Amino acid sequence: MNDWANRGQRTADYDLLLDLPAARLAAGGGARSGLEHALREAVRDGRLPPGTRLPSSRVLAGDLGLARNTVADAYAQLVAEGWLTARQGSGTTVAPRPDAAAPPPRPRRRTPSTAPGPAASAELVPDETAGLPYTLWPGSPDLASFPRAAWGAAARRALAAAPNSAFGYTDPRGRPELRAALAAYLARVRGVRTDPEHLLICTGFVQATGLLARVLYGRGARRIAVEEVGFPDTRTLLRTAGLETVPLPVDEDGARVELLDGGPQGRGTSAVLLTPAHQFPNGVRLSPGRRTAVTAWARATGGLIVEDDYDGEFRYDRQPVGALQGLAPDHVVYAGTASKSLAPGLRLAWLALPPHLMAEVVKQKRMADHHSPVLDQLTLAEFLVSGDYDRHVRRMRLRYRRRRDRLVAALAERAPRVRVSGIAAGLHAVLELPPEAGPLDTVVARARSRGLALSPHPVYGGPPDAPAALVIGYGTPPESGFGAALDLLCEVLTDTTA
Amino acid sequence: MNDWANRGQRTADYDLLLDLPAARLAAGGGARSGLEHALREAVRDGRLPPGTRLPSSRVLAGDLGLARNTVADAYAQLVAEGWLTARQGSGTTVAPRPDAAAPPPRPRRRTPSTAPGPAASAELVPDETAGLPYTLWPGSPDLASFPRAAWGAAARRALAAAPNSAFGYTDPRGRPELRAALAAYLARVRGVRTDPEHLLICTGFVQATGLLARVLYGRGARRIAVEEVGFPDTRTLLRTAGLETVPLPVDEDGARVELLDGGPQGRGTSAVLLTPAHQFPNGVRLSPGRRTAVTAWARATGGLIVEDDYDGEFRYDRQPVGALQGLAPDHVVYAGTASKSLAPGLRLAWLALPPHLMAEVVKQKRMADHHSPVLDQLTLAEFLVSGDYDRHVRRMRLRYRRRRDRLVAALAERAPRVRVSGIAAGLHAVLELPPEAGPLDTVVARARSRGLALSPHPVYGGPPDAPAALVIGYGTPPESGFGAALDLLCEVLTDTTA
Repeated sequence: MNDWANRGQRTADYDLLLDLPAARLAAGGGARSGLEHALREAVRDGRLPPGTRLPSSRVLAGDLGLARNTVADAYAQLVAEGWLTARQGSGTTVAPRPDAAAPPPRPRRRTPSTAPGPAASAELVPDETAGLPYTLWPGSPDLASFPRAAWGAAARRALAAAPNSAFGYTDPRGRPELRAALAAYLARVRGVRTDPEHLLICTGFVQATGLLARVLYGRGARRIAVEEVGFPDTRTLLRTAGLETVPLPVDEDGARVELLDGGPQGRGTSAVLLTPAHQFPNGVRLSPGRRTAVTAWARATGGLIVEDDYDGEFRYDRQPVGALQGLAPDHVVYAGTASKSLAPGLRLAWLALPPHLMAEVVKQKRMADHHSPVLDQLTLAEFLVSGDYDRHVRRMRLRYRRRRDRLVAALAERAPRVRVSGIAAGLHAVLELPPEAGPLDTVVARARSRGLALSPHPVYGGPPDAPAALVIGYGTPPESGFGAALDLLCEVLTDTTA
Repeated sequence: MNDWANRGQRTADYDLLLDLPAARLAAGGGARSGLEHALREAVRDGRLPPGTRLPSSRVLAGDLGLARNTVADAYAQLVAEGWLTARQGSGTTVAPRPDAAAPPPRPRRRTPSTAPGPAASAELVPDETAGLPYTLWPGSPDLASFPRAAWGAAARRALAAAPNSAFGYTDPRGRPELRAALAAYLARVRGVRTDPEHLLICTGFVQATGLLARVLYGRGARRIAVEEVGFPDTRTLLRTAGLETVPLPVDEDGARVELLDGGPQGRGTSAVLLTPAHQFPNGVRLSPGRRTAVTAWARATGGLIVEDDYDGEFRYDRQPVGALQGLAPDHVVYAGTASKSLAPGLRLAWLALPPHLMAEVVKQKRMADHHSPVLDQLTLAEFLVSGDYDRHVRRMRLRYRRRRDRLVAALAERAPRVRVSGIAAGLHAVLELPPEAGPLDTVVARARSRGLALSPHPVYGGPPDAPAALVIGYGTPPESGFGAALDLLCEVLTDTTA
């Protein structure tokens, strides 16, 4: 009965089912993303219930007048995102979604009382790139590529168009112009399911982490799971708010979220912070099975998933995997940022929030700084609406992709025993060093003595028996300095591993 | 011996003593501010010790070749700021400064342990102006007067001149360009004694309050004195950080800071937050005697004074009283903001910090949002350096002064029993209503029904037996709407009090 391929009047049904008028295809950035969008919507709203078998890509492509690869790619994308399941022999079916319709159970409130309070001793990571002429330290885009001219023009238009009221104290969520532009952008590019009312603009992801941590703590949460390797400041911020951070090991399929279910990691844990599209720093993506598992955990326990989508726009080998948030908008806080796509100096980030968290996060934001500064918000809105943002991201994607290719090729030639791990995405890669490379500290010190800042993997935590590795921020240098930085890196690694 | 007027070679000595070369007079914005600056410096560094009797204004004016009024005004200014004392019959002498040279005793640290933690129930003040066509609600400058063209031009220059590194993660204190420009501006205009290393740019005064409250709490502080009437959100923020707020009554001489010394208000109180230049909302200034008293308290106890100088640039009847911070830079945190001088939407504020607090505030700032957004910072730096800021403040000072004059004149004519209290300064005034005005709620409701938002004084706290009063934000409406708002106000008050 759910076997779609056996229905009559196939073409007409597809159109109805997938809400695929020509307009959507034309507007949505091409047939493939239009098809993906339509399929996601159909799964979400129940028109394609779990277990439904989809027609083969050949059949659907023929019916819709699309290239077969277009359909196959869309299927693969939705499998990766957890919407569909592909099994050898049984074709493509809609993935099971545990009680998707049930309202999210709210975490029990405890009386906030004897809080650990601010962890005054928490230390933040120092800047180790200062004073060195070359850097491959991760965490920053190429600042020299900031689109000054286009940004300046957008700022001028935004300043001229702003209503007087924009210069006053405004909505703690941020300017409505930006929230509207972002809601559309995030739906189109990242598959985020939100609306302007449930977006909140904040002064960088650091602030977002603090706001969420305080809200969670206020709701009685005391433990939050985090990826065992990750940005150390994030853990510091969570702990400062009184939360215990519970590490989840990270393997080739991403964080081992299944440990939340029954493992000691799950005991008393009411939230988990993940980098599903591109684990930082290990560079893997969260597997489809784990995407399903963690949303099931959230639904079953009322737990909250915080999705840090810091570089989700940069994927080089295929379409980026859509945001986890799209699978379970009531259980996921989606966090995005302009820090990688544009510049950290802007301090612009955004949260897409489940409605039940909205009021508390808004209140924390108002207590943090009332609202984020308005002029950059209005400029980013203008930048998004004008298409400047897409153009900039496309240009940078190509540039970073070339850098990654150059890095991989140079290492293959000059230090072939060094392994580049992680998916082809983002602005950084992990380099696993062979045993003969010697102590990591020596490698880093040798690079330092040549003027190159390198980040040893242990900076980001992880098990003590992890292989020696570097986290290379190939996105960091200016275009003009990348070649020299890469040469220095190869020299250092050739010295060591030759 | 300290009697200056009896020294020989008077003119030469003055030059030496006051560091008054012609250059300083020419550069410093006129003879009077040059003289004030020189006298402040001489008192500060001990060249004019406490008790020194100054020459009469006539004698000094003759010796320096200045108009007598210039010298008399400078003396009056420094008396108001607490540097000098004037007593009928005994002339002008340098004010006593209790152990100014002693290093500040540090507050005892307590172990931060069973903190009250976030006061989840704290409520912020709702916006009551929404939807009304006219508003005289205080707390906002005239947003329609934001200098869009000049700001846009400065933004363009700043964007072009910024080094690439400005777009990255930068110093949590903020951009050095802005800190340098502000240090010079604050010294010149507000008598603040600081340098770029000890300034910290933050995302509005709301954030500054939170940072300071967390630092104080982390140092073991549990009680902070505040003015009994004030902006309620500030008290909420302090309490949220775990601090008990101890109210100080406010009279015609400002907050009754002498109660810190021996009164129950002083017991266990390690900090006090004041609006010395223009009490919010009552509009009085802190008297010279109380300025001296509160700095003496800080010196004796190691207590900290937080000086909220939210509208210090706007004084209409005389030169603004210099910042309290200049009297005791090691004991005062000076807080300034662009929210009144330019626009709240910029979310730009700054702290001048005693060196011993610097590291902890920087750390809190980094945990709050790493640093404030850079582009507006660079633009404000450009705005200050180019003189645009001074020009804008001068223009607005004239405009607000005229509005205040119109308000006073209109009330004198149409509702003469209404008393306008507070000094001629800032963007708001307190209107005390005569008993026949009836219940305040009725007055406010009547204004509302005519489309005018009015703020009843009790919104800001204070004793229950205070006279019925309104806080009128004459700076809030656009220039084009001020007349109509004023007419509505007069109508409402005439209805009530006629």
